[in-house]
Amino acid sequence: MNDGAKIKFNQYMQLVNNYIDENVKIFYPENIYESMRYSLLAGGKRLRPVIAIETASLFNVPIENILPTACAIEMLHCQSLIHDDLPCMDDDDFRRGKPSNHKMFGEATAVLAGDALLSYAPKFIIDKTPKSVSSDILLNVLREFFIAAGVDGIISGQIVDLDSEKKKISKETLEYIHEFKTAKLFKLAIRAGAMIGEASQDVVDNLTLFAQYYGHAFQIYDDVLDVTSSLEQLGKTPGKDEKSQKSTYVSMYGLDDAKKQIIFYCSQACDILNKNMINSEILKAIVSDIVEGIGKCS
Amino acid sequence: MNDGAKIKFNQYMQLVNNYIDENVKIFYPENIYESMRYSLLAGGKRLRPVIAIETASLFNVPIENILPTACAIEMLHCQSLIHDDLPCMDDDDFRRGKPSNHKMFGEATAVLAGDALLSYAPKFIIDKTPKSVSSDILLNVLREFFIAAGVDGIISGQIVDLDSEKKKISKETLEYIHEFKTAKLFKLAIRAGAMIGEASQDVVDNLTLFAQYYGHAFQIYDDVLDVTSSLEQLGKTPGKDEKSQKSTYVSMYGLDDAKKQIIFYCSQACDILNKNMINSEILKAIVSDIVEGIGKCS
Repeated sequence: MNDGAKIKFNQYMQLVNNYIDENVKIFYPENIYESMRYSLLAGGKRLRPVIAIETASLFNVPIENILPTACAIEMLHCQSLIHDDLPCMDDDDFRRGKPSNHKMFGEATAVLAGDALLSYAPKFIIDKTPKSVSSDILLNVLREFFIAAGVDGIISGQIVDLDSEKKKISKETLEYIHEFKTAKLFKLAIRAGAMIGEASQDVVDNLTLFAQYYGHAFQIYDDVLDVTSSLEQLGKTPGKDEKSQKSTYVSMYGLDDAKKQIIFYCSQACDILNKNMINSEILKAIVSDIVEGIGKCS
Repeated sequence: MNDGAKIKFNQYMQLVNNYIDENVKIFYPENIYESMRYSLLAGGKRLRPVIAIETASLFNVPIENILPTACAIEMLHCQSLIHDDLPCMDDDDFRRGKPSNHKMFGEATAVLAGDALLSYAPKFIIDKTPKSVSSDILLNVLREFFIAAGVDGIISGQIVDLDSEKKKISKETLEYIHEFKTAKLFKLAIRAGAMIGEASQDVVDNLTLFAQYYGHAFQIYDDVLDVTSSLEQLGKTPGKDEKSQKSTYVSMYGLDDAKKQIIFYCSQACDILNKNMINSEILKAIVSDIVEGIGKCS
C-alpha cells in the first residue's frame, strides 16, 4: 500500500476504533458488555468498515452518515468470529493474537455476546445514523445487513464449511463457501456504502462484482497464510485447516495454483475499477496488498 | 378461556402456523433450514404472536400488516429457546415435548440456526410487511425488536439468570430476570401491534404496562408449573430449576406466596384493561387462564 492510501486507511481505521470505543458503553450486567467490547476492541484491520467508508466517500457522503453502518458491519464480523471460534464449531483458542472470547468469558457468555451483537449492530444503525439519510435507504441497508448475516450469507457459508470437513468437496462447493462465508461481508460493506451514497444501480452492481472478486482473492490468500505463517504473524492458530482436515484451495490444488488463482481474482477486481473509472486509492491498495503479500509467501 | 376467546385465539394461532410454514422454505444448504423449521414448527401456544395480532386488531389493522411482525416475534422466541437449551446454557434435552434443537441437529447447527433466525426475523418484517405500513413505523418496530432481542432485553435476562445459579439472589435481581428474560418479549408483541396500529403514546404506554404485569405473572406461573407438572404436561424437563439450583419465586418465597404474587400481577393487568377501556377478549382471557391455572396447581 502506498503512503497516501496507508494514511487514509489508518485514519478510517482510527475513526472506527474510536466510534466503537465511545459508543459501546458498559452497563449492568457488566460481563455481557465487557465480553462484547473485548472482541470489538481486540484489534483487527477494520477492513470491512474501511471499505464501507471509502465507498461512501466516493459519493461524497458525510462521514457521520456512514460511520454507524461501517461500525455495525464490524460488529457483525466480530459476532461471526466469536461464534466460529466456539468449541462446537472451529474450536479456536486464539483470535487477533488474544485468547478467543469463550476462553476469556466462558462459552455461555460468548454465545450470548454474539447474539447480542446481532441485535446491537442493526439497532446501532437505526439509532446513530443522522436523519438526513432517509428511512427508505436505511431499510435497504438493514436488509443488506440481514442478507449478509443470515442464511443468505455467512450462516450458510459456515454450515457448508463445517459440513465439508474430513471429506472431498467439489470446486463448486469450495467457491460456495468462499462466496457465502467471506465475499458476502465485503459485498455488504461496499453495497451499504454505495446505497447510502445513493449510487445508481449500475454502479452498485459494478462495485458488488469488485467485492466478489476481492472476497474470493482474500479467502484464498487467508488459506495460503494459514499454511505459511506463524501464530504471531496470523494472530490466530496456524495450520488449523490441515488439522481439521478442511478442504481449501491450497489443499485441493497446491500453493502455486492457489497463488495463480489469487492473481486472477485480483486482476479481475482491478479491471472493474479501471473500466468503470472507480477512482479509489484504498480499493486499489487493498487489492495490491494481497498481490504483494503472496509474493512474500513460501 | 371462554369459547369465544378460544376460537379467536386458535384462529390467530393457525394463521401464524400457516404463515410460517408457507414462508420459511427449504433451500441449500438444507440442514440449516430444516433446523430452523424444526424449532419454528415444533408446536407451542404462539402466545406472543397472538398478542401482537390481537393488539393490532384493536386498532383495525389489516391482518396482513401485522402477520409478518407477529411471526418474526415468534422466530425471536424460538431463537432464544434454541440457544437457552444449549449444553453450555440451561442444557435441556426437551422442548415443547420434542428433543431440543441441538439434540436433533448437533450443537454447531443449533447455534447457527439461532443466529440465522436473528437475521431472518427482521428481514421477514422488511420483506413481508405491505407497503401501506410506512418506513418510519417499520423502523420503529424493528427498533423495538432489537431492544427485546439484545442487551436491553432477553440477552441480559439470560446472563443474569445464568449468573444467579447456585447463589442467593435479592428480590430485585429476581424481578430483573423476570422483566428482561420474559416481560420484554410480551412488551415487544404488544408494542409492535400498537405501533403498527398507530396508537397514541398514552395507549402504547398503558398496553406496555399490561404486558409488564402479565409477563411477570407468566414467569412466576412458569416456575410454579416447573415444580408441580410432569414432562408430558410441561413439554420440557420439569424440576430443572431445583436441579440447577436456580432461585425462583417459588424457591425463595414458597408456593403459596408465589400464587399470591401471580394473583396480584394478574389483577393489576386486568385493572389496566378495565380502567383504559381496552376491550380485548384475548388479553382478558390469557390473564384469566393463568388465574384458573394456579387454582389447579398443588
